[in-house]
Amino acid sequence: MVKLLYPTSHKLDISLVEGFSIELCPYNVKELFREVDLDAEILVTWFNSKDNLKDAATRLKKLRWVQSLSAGANDILAAGFGPEVILTSGSGLHDHTVAEHTLGLILNAARRFFEMRDYQMQGKWPGHLGGMQPDRPPGAFTSLCDANVLIWGFGNIARTLSPLLLALGARVRGIARQPGIRSGIEVFSDQKIEELLPETDVLLMMLPGSQGTKNVLSAQRLELLPKHAWVVNVGRGMALDEKALYEALHKGVIGGAALDVFVTEPLPEASPLWKAPNLILSPHAAGGRPRDPEGLIAHNVRQFQAGQKLKNVL
Amino acid sequence: MVKLLYPTSHKLDISLVEGFSIELCPYNVKELFREVDLDAEILVTWFNSKDNLKDAATRLKKLRWVQSLSAGANDILAAGFGPEVILTSGSGLHDHTVAEHTLGLILNAARRFFEMRDYQMQGKWPGHLGGMQPDRPPGAFTSLCDANVLIWGFGNIARTLSPLLLALGARVRGIARQPGIRSGIEVFSDQKIEELLPETDVLLMMLPGSQGTKNVLSAQRLELLPKHAWVVNVGRGMALDEKALYEALHKGVIGGAALDVFVTEPLPEASPLWKAPNLILSPHAAGGRPRDPEGLIAHNVRQFQAGQKLKNVL
Repeated sequence: MVKLLYPTSHKLDISLVEGFSIELCPYNVKELFREVDLDAEILVTWFNSKDNLKDAATRLKKLRWVQSLSAGANDILAAGFGPEVILTSGSGLHDHTVAEHTLGLILNAARRFFEMRDYQMQGKWPGHLGGMQPDRPPGAFTSLCDANVLIWGFGNIARTLSPLLLALGARVRGIARQPGIRSGIEVFSDQKIEELLPETDVLLMMLPGSQGTKNVLSAQRLELLPKHAWVVNVGRGMALDEKALYEALHKGVIGGAALDVFVTEPLPEASPLWKAPNLILSPHAAGGRPRDPEGLIAHNVRQFQAGQKLKNVL
Repeated sequence: MVKLLYPTSHKLDISLVEGFSIELCPYNVKELFREVDLDAEILVTWFNSKDNLKDAATRLKKLRWVQSLSAGANDILAAGFGPEVILTSGSGLHDHTVAEHTLGLILNAARRFFEMRDYQMQGKWPGHLGGMQPDRPPGAFTSLCDANVLIWGFGNIARTLSPLLLALGARVRGIARQPGIRSGIEVFSDQKIEELLPETDVLLMMLPGSQGTKNVLSAQRLELLPKHAWVVNVGRGMALDEKALYEALHKGVIGGAALDVFVTEPLPEASPLWKAPNLILSPHAAGGRPRDPEGLIAHNVRQFQAGQKLKNVL
């Protein structure tokens, strides 16, 4: 009987994975593996410690497949599993939750809920944000209607988010390695970035973490954005030069930034970003809550048992 | 030549209203009318003072039509214009802006951006809101996906907002004087409210201000909501018993409230609502920015000149 180890770090309804003639055993993702589990052939991971994954790579000798519930799954790629072990990611489990959070961050920026909160905490009525207002005055980002949104790293999450942005009246374009039309959205290659930034009201960063994406949003590129533009990063912190961003916020080079990811998380106490003007801080909260992971696990278990191709192979 | 007075309280592109053989003259909505303007037959209003409207009702003897840019337009109804004066509202000019703001408030509640802000201001990482999270745990409102949203006061704004809520996975129902199916949404009469409240995750209040709506969201009705439910009010402050709401928040009877409107605005310093837990305060900012008022004015001027029925007659 094939043994599958599932993590107790997420509350899985494991009954949904039963019935495939496999033995389902829970394990702790922050500890080394128990002797009794060393014969496992399938490992499901979620927020595993580095030591745990290293232990899996060295001591689970019969391992044939690792299913991560993370979208990126950099951790299992880096853990040193042999080439005989199939690695699959949790791509797709986070599309809706990240899209919803991102939309919330964008509306927070447009309607300045963060500033309203600061006034509320001081017992002050933020009258300048209410009452009579101009509708979408030039040189300000106050509504998604007619706003130009550029999604850098146009993948599954962008595909889920785009219809919502369009429904609110935004014009959406994307940047990805492969240009083309995806789900009706025009996606450009990253060589076009310098051309697109000056026409952008909201720059949505959804890039994965890798050497190729390090500091791609640089001081020079921030300068190309309009003064009222907002940067929203829900990809990886390293894709954005945090020092350059702080300077840009401080000097009013851009309108603001909503960050869900940072180079170091939690954001260090000494970071100047805490007090940067027009900065919305979110604690890596866009994803982290896989939706229907049982469905993906069950699908892949079925394929695995049948010797068929798994979904989300890395 | 018919004279139309337009308000300088909103930056109108008045060139879009030219060409109807009418004389277009600006006026100050906070002052009494100038002698030279007393022959006006059409008055467009936006945030006029009470004294100004009273002056209009008594001194503009030739007045035949008042076009408000407000959705509610209670002010012109109460100003004492004679029965010979047609009154029209700005209904429809605020649908999109109010819908966008309301969606932002709901996502602020679900994703707790207000709480993240409090942590940020203290230089603290709100780790409990990020990282590993359960997806839509029972007894909490954390996502619009599968949430039951009840819109009390189902009119134009609700019709604009509903498709967005549905796209995010919510189940939407409405309450209005006339029950039925509107734009695909099931709308109940207000006699059903007690039945619907216990099944509601988000109660959206979009009621107009009138004697019939005073304190309709009472202590007793708040008690019928689930403990995790949020109340969002973008209609009129009087529709909600503020004392009862404060008590409900304080005692954890409901999950939270996002208020854009209050019985008295600005909210008085002495109000306990400033410090109520899980309260998001927005300074009557959902609307207040009419979208394409020139289009409505031009349409109605054309109808007026042709002796046809105007849009939005009160």
